[in-house]
Amino acid sequence: MKRTHNNGELRLSNVNEEVTLIGWVSKRRNFGALVFIDLRDRYGITQLVFDEQLAKHITNVRNEYILKVDGVVAERKDKNPKLATGDIEIKVKGVEIVNTAETTPLIIADETDALEDTRLVYRYLDLRRPVMQNKMMLRHKITKTMRNFLDDQEFLEIETPILTKSTPEGARDYLVPSRIHEGEFYALPQSPQLFKQLLMISGFEKYYQVARCFRDEDLRADRQPDFTQVDIEMSFMSEEEIQTMLENMMVKVMKETLDYDLKVPFLRLPYEEAMNRYGSDKPDNRFGIELKDIKGVFEHSEFKVFKGVESIKAIVVPEQASLSRKEIDKLTDLAKKYGAGGLVSLKFVDDALQGGVVKFFSDTEIAELITVLNLQNNDLVLISSDTWQTTCEVLGALRLHFADVLQLTSKDDFSFLWVTDFPLVEYDKEDGRYYAKHHPFTRPKDEDLKYLDTAPEKVHAAAYDMVLNGYEIGGGSLRIYDNEVQKKMFKILGFSDEEIQERFGFFVDAFKYGTPPHGGFAYGLDRVAMILSKSDSIRDVIAFPKNAAARCPMTGAPGKVDDKQLEELHLQVIYSEKE
Amino acid sequence: MKRTHNNGELRLSNVNEEVTLIGWVSKRRNFGALVFIDLRDRYGITQLVFDEQLAKHITNVRNEYILKVDGVVAERKDKNPKLATGDIEIKVKGVEIVNTAETTPLIIADETDALEDTRLVYRYLDLRRPVMQNKMMLRHKITKTMRNFLDDQEFLEIETPILTKSTPEGARDYLVPSRIHEGEFYALPQSPQLFKQLLMISGFEKYYQVARCFRDEDLRADRQPDFTQVDIEMSFMSEEEIQTMLENMMVKVMKETLDYDLKVPFLRLPYEEAMNRYGSDKPDNRFGIELKDIKGVFEHSEFKVFKGVESIKAIVVPEQASLSRKEIDKLTDLAKKYGAGGLVSLKFVDDALQGGVVKFFSDTEIAELITVLNLQNNDLVLISSDTWQTTCEVLGALRLHFADVLQLTSKDDFSFLWVTDFPLVEYDKEDGRYYAKHHPFTRPKDEDLKYLDTAPEKVHAAAYDMVLNGYEIGGGSLRIYDNEVQKKMFKILGFSDEEIQERFGFFVDAFKYGTPPHGGFAYGLDRVAMILSKSDSIRDVIAFPKNAAARCPMTGAPGKVDDKQLEELHLQVIYSEKE
Repeated sequence: MKRTHNNGELRLSNVNEEVTLIGWVSKRRNFGALVFIDLRDRYGITQLVFDEQLAKHITNVRNEYILKVDGVVAERKDKNPKLATGDIEIKVKGVEIVNTAETTPLIIADETDALEDTRLVYRYLDLRRPVMQNKMMLRHKITKTMRNFLDDQEFLEIETPILTKSTPEGARDYLVPSRIHEGEFYALPQSPQLFKQLLMISGFEKYYQVARCFRDEDLRADRQPDFTQVDIEMSFMSEEEIQTMLENMMVKVMKETLDYDLKVPFLRLPYEEAMNRYGSDKPDNRFGIELKDIKGVFEHSEFKVFKGVESIKAIVVPEQASLSRKEIDKLTDLAKKYGAGGLVSLKFVDDALQGGVVKFFSDTEIAELITVLNLQNNDLVLISSDTWQTTCEVLGALRLHFADVLQLTSKDDFSFLWVTDFPLVEYDKEDGRYYAKHHPFTRPKDEDLKYLDTAPEKVHAAAYDMVLNGYEIGGGSLRIYDNEVQKKMFKILGFSDEEIQERFGFFVDAFKYGTPPHGGFAYGLDRVAMILSKSDSIRDVIAFPKNAAARCPMTGAPGKVDDKQLEELHLQVIYSEKE
Repeated sequence: MKRTHNNGELRLSNVNEEVTLIGWVSKRRNFGALVFIDLRDRYGITQLVFDEQLAKHITNVRNEYILKVDGVVAERKDKNPKLATGDIEIKVKGVEIVNTAETTPLIIADETDALEDTRLVYRYLDLRRPVMQNKMMLRHKITKTMRNFLDDQEFLEIETPILTKSTPEGARDYLVPSRIHEGEFYALPQSPQLFKQLLMISGFEKYYQVARCFRDEDLRADRQPDFTQVDIEMSFMSEEEIQTMLENMMVKVMKETLDYDLKVPFLRLPYEEAMNRYGSDKPDNRFGIELKDIKGVFEHSEFKVFKGVESIKAIVVPEQASLSRKEIDKLTDLAKKYGAGGLVSLKFVDDALQGGVVKFFSDTEIAELITVLNLQNNDLVLISSDTWQTTCEVLGALRLHFADVLQLTSKDDFSFLWVTDFPLVEYDKEDGRYYAKHHPFTRPKDEDLKYLDTAPEKVHAAAYDMVLNGYEIGGGSLRIYDNEVQKKMFKILGFSDEEIQERFGFFVDAFKYGTPPHGGFAYGLDRVAMILSKSDSIRDVIAFPKNAAARCPMTGAPGKVDDKQLEELHLQVIYSEKE
């Protein structure tokens, strides 16, 4: 089975060499008595030429047959500049049909018009398409570069359990019934959070793991029940040191995978600034249309929509003043989806502000608005007035909408930034209590400790997200290692001693025995691979993904099991009435 | 938090340098007005000396407190050759107590008398013991070396699903109920077997994965519900090429981890020879006591135990003729555990064969036995007569028993070998049918294809196990890629077309579209790490293992879940009557 070369490496310098190649038939053309075959493997495509004599041996050979050929490298007359091997072809001297193939239900080519479900049913063929092979190779390279970087810095990869106990991450756990322990269940980990902190308590100092994580969440378009996280934790390092290390890691990843020179340090945007300017805690800053606070303009407004609201903000979209009523209605619908009661839209045309509500504005307000927003002719102005959170989120969503329809961004541009200084806790008015913004073990910023007792909502967390092109590609924080602070934190969150013991028992116990200051981070590997491979979905960078219904169309998982299996697990399915 | 050095690196050459160290208090001794502290981190231990003045600041400091100290490196008077840093100590100039610690329920030292369950409850402290840290570091190094080796050879790491469908591996699957699809279940993979073969069909050619696998088997001492496999598959390579590659991989692993020069090629023992000589398909050949076939000696025996049996074999244990009746009885019990009806034991003392059954032997038989077994005075002879399988297994077990009690092996010696040429199928008399020895996709040896129709039991598989010191540390095979052979194989195994579709449906379909010749291998990473780290149990090389009852004593997993969770999963627990 030995080949001398793969199908991506022969060049003009190899002309006249005798070679042996193996691969899949990618294309077959007859040209007079000659037969041309494009032979494909993971490395590329090489053109084979069969003379009249040899062509007789391959009359039945069709696409996706596997051939082994011996031949001589020759210069091509009609060179193909699109192909790395396009300068040469192989004059075949001998051929062996290694295996046959039926007609594939998908065409094995970069371009496909197959529906995604068909692609997933025949995923093994979908993955044969060169574009998909390249995505998998890129993903491998990303992981490998991250590993090498971490290995070089003396991080230890340590595997943590997949069959474990519920973790307090907020999302729903996948459960695994125990056969041996009647009525008891393992949980699949939502992340190795507790284990990685315990490993710091164990004194490993630097841990990482390319870790499989599981969340039984309600399904959205681009979510997977199981996903992969490059999980990192370290002791004795500051927030700044951790961020610098992670930046350098991405410098290496971008260089090794895309030969892209990434500049460090990344922009650092405090959470509040990110929200105020971009209406998002994961801003895409590759384009403008930033949010402007215009509450000052309408301080004394008679317009009832603006009266007494917490926040009034606007975005200005150039050259969009001509949008139709119908299109504006669509924008309003989008705004409502994000919690707005409505949306004020204005146009700046012929040096004048136009729009239904302009009549409620005073001349001063109009003049001030034009100045503050620096309006130009043909600008579209969209204003949201609501709570701070809602105005930010509504305009943030509209901003992204315009980036999309106006094609303001390119997949070839990469903008990394940090969002920092998240609030430690959020107050839930309905429940009348505080919730941890990250988790109850996130460390408050030292300088805010003074507010911990009196005004916890003022306290910032030592938490940081890494954002790339508007996606949160990772997040982390320093963790609490001081028992007193931890106790205060639990008190703020309203946990009783019993609840603490029940929810976090063994974990809190562990902190008593000499816990080092520590913190960490986790990359969402699927997302990183998706963006770097310029894919539209994380499903394109996962070899065997689930579809939007959490099903694998290829294997059919999940599926029915037989009664004996359920009996062994002490379980019975309770079908709802509709069945 | 910056330190200048870790606690394992300071030497005489650093004397007079100003350093900052961080670590855990490993030991504290008062010597007059001075206090000596051993400061420990992952890298080692360094001795600190506090003068009378500074000692006052650390009166409350006990074991496992975390300290940060500034000081000057000084030569020690009483050097400690057992410690890498034993030539120096730090004259402390400043100290900060980073964190306090309660008295630990385990002593943090290499030697421990704690029960394993205590160690597992406080695993985070158990892992703080230097001996355990070293095991985790060795495991990391093994994995890293394997990865680097595979990366260098252009293998791609590709992740395969954890939430998937039952695989036909034989063992019991762990199931994961689906919340969205009522009454349906995912299965956790017993191995990525089907996926890795599909990736070959996809044309990736070289795949690997450090893969988590799951088997809900009945528990034995040294098994884990979830374990790790270094899973490998490749196309277009012969059995010999695969084995050579895997040998070179182990050469690198042994060199990088233990600086051990491993000789290749490994000994290759066909399955039959392994059984005949060592009574095991995973022989430990670091010591003798090989099995001898003595059926020829007793061809015409009048001894009814030997009459008409399929196989008569013996082992000879030197210097053990003086075993007591009671000890012999124990051996008989062991033999019975392995399926023997009984055990014939003889002694060769004063140049004569002794034992209860000698009276049934003819003089010729006795003389021949002495010659064939080359008996020496004080030899103990143990004879098993039964089916071939049973005599082999019984004497194989007794052989290992003596290796253990006579301490014939050392954990510092490493003997790698291949067991090859396994039978393709085994005939089950009770069921009256053949079963695949490995799985139904294992390729028959080309030279045995001629027997496939007429005498399948004669066919050998292109399957191979790697054995180290009597442990199977990995196994693999070439796979069938020819539809005709696959059909024959299914026919031999008695599968109907419906059964094939039901059990292997999508997988068999995939083989129609141009399947390359392929084969693979999987290392049991836990076992490799156990043997290389000279541990007694795989639990010692798994950070957070389950105990023998498949429970995690630290987290308490598995555990009860609340009714709401079960309801969401459409499940009800059926408690057995005893509850």
